[in-house]
Amino acid sequence: MLTPESYACGQWVAPGENATEITGPVTGEPIARAGGSALDMQAMLDFARTKGGPALRAMTFHQRAKMLKALATYLDGRKDELYALNPMTGATKRDGWVDIDGGIGTTFVIASKGRREMPDGHVYLDGDVEQLSRNGTLLGQHIAVPLQGVAVHINAFNFPVWGMMEKLAPTLLAGVPAIVKPATQTCYLTEACFRMIIDSGLLPEGAVQLIVGRTGDLLDRLTAQDVVSFTGSADTAAMLRANPNLVENSTRFVAEQDSLNAAILGADATPDSPEFALFVKEAVTEMTTKAGQKCTAMRRLIVPATQLEAVIEAMSAKLAALTIGDPSDKANRMGALASMGQKADVLEKLAILKKEARVVHGDPDSLPADLASCAFLPPILLACDDPDNAVSVHSVEAFGPVSTLLPYRDTAHAAEIANRGGGSLVASLFTNDPAIAREVTLASAAWHGRLYVMGRASADEATGHGSPLPHMIHGGPGRAGGGEELGGVRGVLHYMQRTAIQGSPDVLTAITGTWIKGAAELTGPSHPFQRTFREIQIGETIHTDPRIISLEDIEHFAHFTGDTFYAHMDEEAAAANPFFPGRVAHGYLLLSFAAGLFVQPDPGPVLANTGLNSLSFQKPVSPGDSVKVRLTAKRKTQRTDEYGEVAWNATLTNQDGDQVAEYELLTMVAYER
Amino acid sequence: MLTPESYACGQWVAPGENATEITGPVTGEPIARAGGSALDMQAMLDFARTKGGPALRAMTFHQRAKMLKALATYLDGRKDELYALNPMTGATKRDGWVDIDGGIGTTFVIASKGRREMPDGHVYLDGDVEQLSRNGTLLGQHIAVPLQGVAVHINAFNFPVWGMMEKLAPTLLAGVPAIVKPATQTCYLTEACFRMIIDSGLLPEGAVQLIVGRTGDLLDRLTAQDVVSFTGSADTAAMLRANPNLVENSTRFVAEQDSLNAAILGADATPDSPEFALFVKEAVTEMTTKAGQKCTAMRRLIVPATQLEAVIEAMSAKLAALTIGDPSDKANRMGALASMGQKADVLEKLAILKKEARVVHGDPDSLPADLASCAFLPPILLACDDPDNAVSVHSVEAFGPVSTLLPYRDTAHAAEIANRGGGSLVASLFTNDPAIAREVTLASAAWHGRLYVMGRASADEATGHGSPLPHMIHGGPGRAGGGEELGGVRGVLHYMQRTAIQGSPDVLTAITGTWIKGAAELTGPSHPFQRTFREIQIGETIHTDPRIISLEDIEHFAHFTGDTFYAHMDEEAAAANPFFPGRVAHGYLLLSFAAGLFVQPDPGPVLANTGLNSLSFQKPVSPGDSVKVRLTAKRKTQRTDEYGEVAWNATLTNQDGDQVAEYELLTMVAYER
Repeated sequence: MLTPESYACGQWVAPGENATEITGPVTGEPIARAGGSALDMQAMLDFARTKGGPALRAMTFHQRAKMLKALATYLDGRKDELYALNPMTGATKRDGWVDIDGGIGTTFVIASKGRREMPDGHVYLDGDVEQLSRNGTLLGQHIAVPLQGVAVHINAFNFPVWGMMEKLAPTLLAGVPAIVKPATQTCYLTEACFRMIIDSGLLPEGAVQLIVGRTGDLLDRLTAQDVVSFTGSADTAAMLRANPNLVENSTRFVAEQDSLNAAILGADATPDSPEFALFVKEAVTEMTTKAGQKCTAMRRLIVPATQLEAVIEAMSAKLAALTIGDPSDKANRMGALASMGQKADVLEKLAILKKEARVVHGDPDSLPADLASCAFLPPILLACDDPDNAVSVHSVEAFGPVSTLLPYRDTAHAAEIANRGGGSLVASLFTNDPAIAREVTLASAAWHGRLYVMGRASADEATGHGSPLPHMIHGGPGRAGGGEELGGVRGVLHYMQRTAIQGSPDVLTAITGTWIKGAAELTGPSHPFQRTFREIQIGETIHTDPRIISLEDIEHFAHFTGDTFYAHMDEEAAAANPFFPGRVAHGYLLLSFAAGLFVQPDPGPVLANTGLNSLSFQKPVSPGDSVKVRLTAKRKTQRTDEYGEVAWNATLTNQDGDQVAEYELLTMVAYER
Repeated sequence: MLTPESYACGQWVAPGENATEITGPVTGEPIARAGGSALDMQAMLDFARTKGGPALRAMTFHQRAKMLKALATYLDGRKDELYALNPMTGATKRDGWVDIDGGIGTTFVIASKGRREMPDGHVYLDGDVEQLSRNGTLLGQHIAVPLQGVAVHINAFNFPVWGMMEKLAPTLLAGVPAIVKPATQTCYLTEACFRMIIDSGLLPEGAVQLIVGRTGDLLDRLTAQDVVSFTGSADTAAMLRANPNLVENSTRFVAEQDSLNAAILGADATPDSPEFALFVKEAVTEMTTKAGQKCTAMRRLIVPATQLEAVIEAMSAKLAALTIGDPSDKANRMGALASMGQKADVLEKLAILKKEARVVHGDPDSLPADLASCAFLPPILLACDDPDNAVSVHSVEAFGPVSTLLPYRDTAHAAEIANRGGGSLVASLFTNDPAIAREVTLASAAWHGRLYVMGRASADEATGHGSPLPHMIHGGPGRAGGGEELGGVRGVLHYMQRTAIQGSPDVLTAITGTWIKGAAELTGPSHPFQRTFREIQIGETIHTDPRIISLEDIEHFAHFTGDTFYAHMDEEAAAANPFFPGRVAHGYLLLSFAAGLFVQPDPGPVLANTGLNSLSFQKPVSPGDSVKVRLTAKRKTQRTDEYGEVAWNATLTNQDGDQVAEYELLTMVAYER
């Protein structure tokens, strides 16, 4: 008998006298006792707010990202222990892979995004500087900083590990402590993973806590700086969302609900096409992975009316060949539902659906007695011949191995049926015709959080309709809860406050750690290219001498490079060009001369020019004009222990002081000499 | 007597028998009859969804932006009619400028952002392409598309014109129709402006409707694709937000509530400093503009304890000099509150505040009888000597010319007091010390939607603590409602759905209208530089011949440009560099040779290279290596009737087929020959 524990205020708390007994879905026997202990919710919140929050906020985004990478590595090294528990939840090894490796992999990706796409500082820049004033003394910059409260994660039973990690990784990267509340049915697997997190010793005290069992009055104690991130049923979400305390405090409430996700077989996909085969294979996978208990599962299979029978035939053949049984036996492709209660719920919903749809494959009563007496169900495929007048098939979800086929007339009709779900996490479209993809997107994207277009071109690298990826947002409008998670940095920002900053260039530079044009220029003790990553100060600037650009330079450059564009070579034709007064210097000539002006030739810490951003040629340079450069250290980002990237703001001005070009120069610089 | 009308389903609807009589705050006399007509809410929603929505969605972002610019121009031409009504609301001409010119100016800025920052298409790209697969056959791209429902705007009484326009401009730019519900007290001014919008004939039928009076069961009829954008009191927001229908449908609810905004006088600001004077001036302005009836007004003035008396003295002197009276008289700096009801509410809240704070300037009973009998109030300055133990001063808002001074010990304490407001729309900090600005930001930004750092450097171009700018977000956490508006494109996206698209490069290209690397390359009938903006097809590609880079080329380029960096000149030193195998070509040499390879020299529609983006040098090029270029038309953006910007994806590959550099090239191209 497992006894998963809570973890509150840095202490493990064993199940109490009123603990819930959890019955195994595969055996029907009790497997765990959980919850029932008296936890002090206010003490847990205080612990997170006074210990975990400040400790996390003291770290930079990169430090938190490194912490997450180390954590993912640690979990990866002990994942066999999680796989050992996995079959108890009813899940096959393949199901477990989505959950366990999926959760660890998500943590790796979020950590990597944090290193690559967020700064090594405490303030995230959201968008560009806004020019709020004519002379540039007042500028605007949107930033994001960590919320100063606690993230409460209320998770579903179907993904005990992924469900925790996909929320925890963005939350911790944001710099916010979390209290995790897993669903009781599978909490022992979540607890095992959570215990590893604590064992790892990688997180600061108070960064994470775990509630096994009831959350009591937790939500009534939240404030404006807290976030509730809920995954589960629409009914529970609606109840929690209307909590008066949350409403009064405008506490963020992110909901990810199961939804009536659709898959559309494109009108171009005939039975002999790769897309038809992909559709059939993916639909069967979606019905049977995790025994259909996925919030992203395909519930509605929208197919051309002309192909309905062919799809029924092809899917039925595949479904019939599928083995169901003890998930610890590798021979079985599909395991059990999570509990007897889930099974009863699916059968109840199935009865409703059957009023609008006929069963075309599968029979709940067909299982052998040993499976039938536990939480097993065979896949059941329905067909609804009048999707326009149906209601339940678009709104009632049987959260198990159940899907319904819906025939359509044309692409517009298919999109209309897909949208009838009232908002979903994901819809997929199987087509080899980009025009159909565009038509469905314009008609349907507003109703779905994710739209996956599958076809022969990307089939070999398909990630699957039902798999949320850490790179892409997960969530959807309406029935799907209106929330959003993941999506790289987007998911991190849900735990941060976006604030509009207005101030002078010096103020914005101090706040963001990035040099903003107009801010003070510093003079270093030597040429910046002779300074290490550590030494270079934000704002460190050199001004070069001017160089005159002669007509000979332009002609020479043209012939040397082969760029004999008429604007450089032919006075009359150039003057006829609306942008040029006559022959002008090549932009790349200016760029090259600029480098000649600011580069220090000797070996030193600045190792390479790796690229440039946002180059803009702003004013033509005529023969006889001169150009000089201002180069200022703008942003520093350490990349490895040895190197860091320094971004420089460069402006080129002519003899009249007019700016003729501006860009951001990227260099790789040694950390130390 | 004014009789403002509703506008439903394309028809004007006069006030009904049960219309409300509106009393003028300046005269105490009835000035208008409004509402009381029976409007069919479902018919209005249907009209918007079936007429306005499809018509707006058929337009591109640029077409909608042009429509908004034309609308702003039209309103600007008739704004005198609005100024004529303005004093009836109690507002001075200066107050009216914030409202009327403010509303028109906001529309201009949003229109301009739409042209510059959004595509001339139907799909907005949110972020970069995500590499979801090793071989790049499956990619991800976040997009945003218009919601397919209706935006319901519920506006406050204090800014009858700006309040409508600041919501309408982003909504229409998004492609979503709106139903506007102004506050009844000042609805006649909103209606006058709305009538001009209809008169202009610039919007498609069904794009906008107006409800003067009650909204009946409107909110009970909204769905997942609709948005409620509410501005007003926290109590009303909490009630509306918990509407069961909205909760069940996860209908977006954006709230912008009045909040207890703070202003901090920095510890560096002594009475002789410019920042002290700025603070006093701005605080007096904030107390008296719109008679203090601004959701952004400074309610809490947080000053160094050592400066408390000096601030009281300076502010009192300014407040005493202020003239109050009929707002149509230019001599008066402050007009009336919006209604007798508002005045009563302010006095009630003042009584609560006085339990924790002492009055240091102003007396409600000091006004002459003619003003005292109408909705006038003098400014009242309070001081609370124990802000740490006070409750009401941080939570009870007197929505009139009332502010409270709060003394602080040090900067951390000041931030802590500011945060006690429980979330606000804006906080400001008056300092000349960027380090103080950073400290306050890190401690406080999470509690405020906007943080304005004012000081001598930006004083001449100050936009004001209380002025939301269309460029910057407006809204704030917690007490401020947790919503967000404006902020350029950010505010537009609140009326759109963000959807994660997964698919092949060809699919993403078709959906986004932007060529994605890996998608099909088209061959045009002639060199792309000889093709007009109109002719160039997305995907049109040329491949150049290769060019060998010799050591002589590198040496020649070095001496010509002056860029004699050792990595190009000294074999031994270059080989010691961790990134280079030995001497390598300059990045700018590659860029210049690339142009030489792909440029077509003759005059033609491609007029100029205006810049480049995201240049990345990916692999060193050694003497003897060759380089060739692929150039593909990636994105087209029309800029004027005559020109458009074409962005090209360029990749440079060496003799082994390895990519050595990639960038986006920007060109300006004639629309027609």
